[in-house]
Amino acid sequence: MGRPFISFLSDFGPDAAAAICRGVMLSIAGDAQILDISHAVRKFAIRDGAYLLWMSVPWLPIGVHVAVVDPGVGTSRRPIGIRTGRGDVLIGPDNGLLMPAAERLGGVESARVLERPDWMLPGPSATFHGRDIFAPVAAHLAAGGDFETVGRSIAATTLVELRFPEPVVRDGSLEAVALYVDSFGNVRIGATTGDLHQALGKLVPGTILRLTFDATEGAPAVTEVVTWARTFGGLPPGATLLYEDSSGQLALGRNQADAAMALGIEPGRGVRIERT
Amino acid sequence: MGRPFISFLSDFGPDAAAAICRGVMLSIAGDAQILDISHAVRKFAIRDGAYLLWMSVPWLPIGVHVAVVDPGVGTSRRPIGIRTGRGDVLIGPDNGLLMPAAERLGGVESARVLERPDWMLPGPSATFHGRDIFAPVAAHLAAGGDFETVGRSIAATTLVELRFPEPVVRDGSLEAVALYVDSFGNVRIGATTGDLHQALGKLVPGTILRLTFDATEGAPAVTEVVTWARTFGGLPPGATLLYEDSSGQLALGRNQADAAMALGIEPGRGVRIERT
Amino acid sequence: MGRPFISFLSDFGPDAAAAICRGVMLSIAGDAQILDISHAVRKFAIRDGAYLLWMSVPWLPIGVHVAVVDPGVGTSRRPIGIRTGRGDVLIGPDNGLLMPAAERLGGVESARVLERPDWMLPGPSATFHGRDIFAPVAAHLAAGGDFETVGRSIAATTLVELRFPEPVVRDGSLEAVALYVDSFGNVRIGATTGDLHQALGKLVPGTILRLTFDATEGAPAVTEVVTWARTFGGLPPGATLLYEDSSGQLALGRNQADAAMALGIEPGRGVRIERT
Repeated sequence: MGRPFISFLSDFGPDAAAAICRGVMLSIAGDAQILDISHAVRKFAIRDGAYLLWMSVPWLPIGVHVAVVDPGVGTSRRPIGIRTGRGDVLIGPDNGLLMPAAERLGGVESARVLERPDWMLPGPSATFHGRDIFAPVAAHLAAGGDFETVGRSIAATTLVELRFPEPVVRDGSLEAVALYVDSFGNVRIGATTGDLHQALGKLVPGTILRLTFDATEGAPAVTEVVTWARTFGGLPPGATLLYEDSSGQLALGRNQADAAMALGIEPGRGVRIERT
Repeated sequence: MGRPFISFLSDFGPDAAAAICRGVMLSIAGDAQILDISHAVRKFAIRDGAYLLWMSVPWLPIGVHVAVVDPGVGTSRRPIGIRTGRGDVLIGPDNGLLMPAAERLGGVESARVLERPDWMLPGPSATFHGRDIFAPVAAHLAAGGDFETVGRSIAATTLVELRFPEPVVRDGSLEAVALYVDSFGNVRIGATTGDLHQALGKLVPGTILRLTFDATEGAPAVTEVVTWARTFGGLPPGATLLYEDSSGQLALGRNQADAAMALGIEPGRGVRIERT
Repeated sequence: MGRPFISFLSDFGPDAAAAICRGVMLSIAGDAQILDISHAVRKFAIRDGAYLLWMSVPWLPIGVHVAVVDPGVGTSRRPIGIRTGRGDVLIGPDNGLLMPAAERLGGVESARVLERPDWMLPGPSATFHGRDIFAPVAAHLAAGGDFETVGRSIAATTLVELRFPEPVVRDGSLEAVALYVDSFGNVRIGATTGDLHQALGKLVPGTILRLTFDATEGAPAVTEVVTWARTFGGLPPGATLLYEDSSGQLALGRNQADAAMALGIEPGRGVRIERT
């Protein structure tokens, strides 16, 4: 209680880059509590990063959240800070990465460009703004620095948008998009159980459903017949299920197996869900 | 000193799931010191998780240890807490995962079902008890909550057992089981140097031994002639050795190479060790 | 502020070994702040470890830095501590791993063998000096122990050397060595922008250059035509660039792609850089 809280997400991988950023933060805010969300975000996959951040922030203490998936580093894309309705500050590039999380934390209350040189490392590099801009600015904020002073205010409407595709509820089918594949191989789908019930009527556990993933360039459509179930354990190993995941959204999984790999599903694929 | 200590092991992988649990813990016990043991346990591999936990706990401060490798999440398997002879509390699913560690920490002193809703997140999900049950209960305990109040007491004899197979000492051979393959590719074997000496007589470093791994479905028996050695560095790169690992158990390794991959050994294979 | 600082790098991978060392450290120095630099160093790759440590230490608070990439564990190679000009202490094996970092932190001010049994775990194993020697000695130092008492002084000249190869500046070409491949697939090269300008004259962004990587056993020479650029984002996805990395050195990358994998480059390859 009282220790400033910083969470940190990136696509930096297992090298030393994330540690270097933590070192910079601790050099500025020595008593900060730094929680690494993940540094294994798929390289350059802004949507994957946005999804993991969106999924995580409700469960984290109020604080500063730094996220860096930044293929545009060193270009004119803006480094930004967003104050949320809950009272957090999100720090990262203005490429959409922070937007779903901001929405989930009560929305964008105010946004600012990061432009205080005295809160950055001297002579920022063109390729490592995590170290030179985002980490030190986050640490100064965590240590009590005033968000109002971080740079000029920018209108929320000018921020680069990133929205997860909305599901389409039809009479007898639900159309949605695979948003993320987790490390278990579960395919997280951008629709809720409520959407599913609206499309297909009330479902009881054990109902058989058909999922059809759209064809993409070089990959044919994939159809899979699955069981609507509460959890994995009630089905035999290898059985495919559709379930409500821990974020309240639909997910496709296989009991003790990797559904996405077995079916060849990657994020971004459209999917239609129907009764058989 | 004084900060509550929580260790944390899971098969959650590099996604945000482990971080979400840490966030929940820090929201409840803000000054807890959380040590991640590993989140790279092979998915659903309860034995691998049990082995890593067993290997780690003697070296950790006394505290609360949360472990989640939980293919039965959301089914009737019980969420449990175990108080050990050393004074730790182990938290996780009742699937055997905690048992070898409990044994190593002075045995099961008492065990309880986790059933205090006010120590859990409201409306627990069916697929993420790490976040909704195990992490918050662990944090409440670390913050000073009384273990006696976590739920009703259960007899140790009702806990799901998990025992590493005992070695069989014969006259002239030792039979044991490959328990774990570490990230170096060393095969950790469930027998001690004492067992080996009892079976083969006193061995001096440099003695040549023959290891024969049992055939399994789809994999033939594997025979490897190895040197009994104290450590890797005395042998040429690529040489195979049997040595006493840092837990006091036998292990098969290759100097600067991956023995398990080269020989095709996975956990669970039986092995016979003899003089040549 | 006031909390003792320990950083930690190893090739231990995702098993529990790094956590066990952290547990040992926290058992001795309960309020230490431990920052994991990386435990994903390529197994046994002393040079990779030395590079990551060299890259990281300038950005870390002054403190104790433990590094363990130690193929010679259990042999006669010495466990050492190095006090640097900046005031840090580096702890690890005497195999060159610590040397580039020491140089970067103001040089070796003094060096000592680690030989205080009361600062080690009793009965050190032959294969896990990270747990038994390096971690506990580092924790005792972080907790205020006097470096002068850690063991007898040794001459800096007796330490095992490890130097990154110096670039060769010719009239019209620069010859250097690929030092490291990061997790993005960028090839970090052991030469600076200054070296490049000296060899090729002043370059403006957009200049086309030719890189020729030497043939090695089993791999032919590789020639790649690249753009000299400040950062990735200005080029089309898949374009190859040479840029100044965040350590002030040259690096070869591909925008949103893995250059090293595409071109088949591993650390240690010589490279010649010329104008086209």
